[in-house]
Amino acid sequence: MIIELDDLTIRDVYKLLSGSVVPRPIAWVSTVSRDGIRNLAPFSFFTVASWNPPTLCFSIGPGVNETRAGPKDTLVNIQETRQFVVNVVTYPLAEQMQRSSANFAPEVDEFEVAGVTPVAGRRVAAPRVLEAPIQMECELDRIVEVGANHLVLGRLVCYHIRDDCYLGDCKVDIKKLQPVGRLAGNYVKIDTFFELPIA
Amino acid sequence: MIIELDDLTIRDVYKLLSGSVVPRPIAWVSTVSRDGIRNLAPFSFFTVASWNPPTLCFSIGPGVNETRAGPKDTLVNIQETRQFVVNVVTYPLAEQMQRSSANFAPEVDEFEVAGVTPVAGRRVAAPRVLEAPIQMECELDRIVEVGANHLVLGRLVCYHIRDDCYLGDCKVDIKKLQPVGRLAGNYVKIDTFFELPIA
Repeated sequence: MIIELDDLTIRDVYKLLSGSVVPRPIAWVSTVSRDGIRNLAPFSFFTVASWNPPTLCFSIGPGVNETRAGPKDTLVNIQETRQFVVNVVTYPLAEQMQRSSANFAPEVDEFEVAGVTPVAGRRVAAPRVLEAPIQMECELDRIVEVGANHLVLGRLVCYHIRDDCYLGDCKVDIKKLQPVGRLAGNYVKIDTFFELPIA
Repeated sequence: MIIELDDLTIRDVYKLLSGSVVPRPIAWVSTVSRDGIRNLAPFSFFTVASWNPPTLCFSIGPGVNETRAGPKDTLVNIQETRQFVVNVVTYPLAEQMQRSSANFAPEVDEFEVAGVTPVAGRRVAAPRVLEAPIQMECELDRIVEVGANHLVLGRLVCYHIRDDCYLGDCKVDIKKLQPVGRLAGNYVKIDTFFELPIA
């Protein structure tokens, strides 16, 4: 069947895309405001934009269930400081991630709400999440406006990985990492692996 | 530990990012050349760029294992025709997808190589994959150059879903859909769902 997009509300389009572009990796993005207030929020419209130079990108939307108006704190902080950290969300951190996802006032420190530990970035002022086994420090490359969204592109400048999740030779141990995938309203554990013959 | 990015080859950076940004949805992108030759290839650096208007994006890289020089046929076709279709890769289609991923000469029709059926787009000249339960017809919004990669942004203009995968109310039945997630060298089935309390 064809679903006529012109007949849908923005919220319905969001639901349809959230259920169709699956499974999604989750960028748990930490930033700090010009005034030194930390922010932490998950974004699942997230991918790699380039590998030379290494560049991550994620989309910040206007929100479809917002109670508070105005742009997201993450966007404001990145516009002000041009820095952020992408922390990888794992199964043991899923509840903490979820607690950081609500719409808080700018003065709220979501590290406290979530119950995770901020640790200073090596190359950026934004804090990292100590408990996240992979933390990727980024400097803003550019922000691309796409309709009502902002696509944030960040150049990876420092890569941290917990020793036990690293196999050497630039290989990550996915079983140890236990990443979480985002679906529409729910999540998926990454545990049923399979291989395909090399084409 | 910190992995020093400056010490890595491009191929190593690619491996590190492929293992860190996980699980990834797969865009199985179908296009047609100016001369009418069909192309089909998978891209897993893929996400939603915006939901108003609905816009998908995926990154086309220079390749890290290339035997054939020059830009990917998908990029050339999109530059020429400004249209493409994103087909969703499911577990029953995984082997067909994989067969379409090798580096073929421009005159090769990957629908034939993969053994899937081209069907005309409703709003675009690019063919859809009949066997894919979700097919999203897109018109090019813009191409953003990010380092050596091209980030292709396409406006969704027609959305197809197989009846049995649609729950109504813009909800996709993920269990019926059986999407496949991309990891580093391997794949993951989407079968261990979990919920989190709404924040």
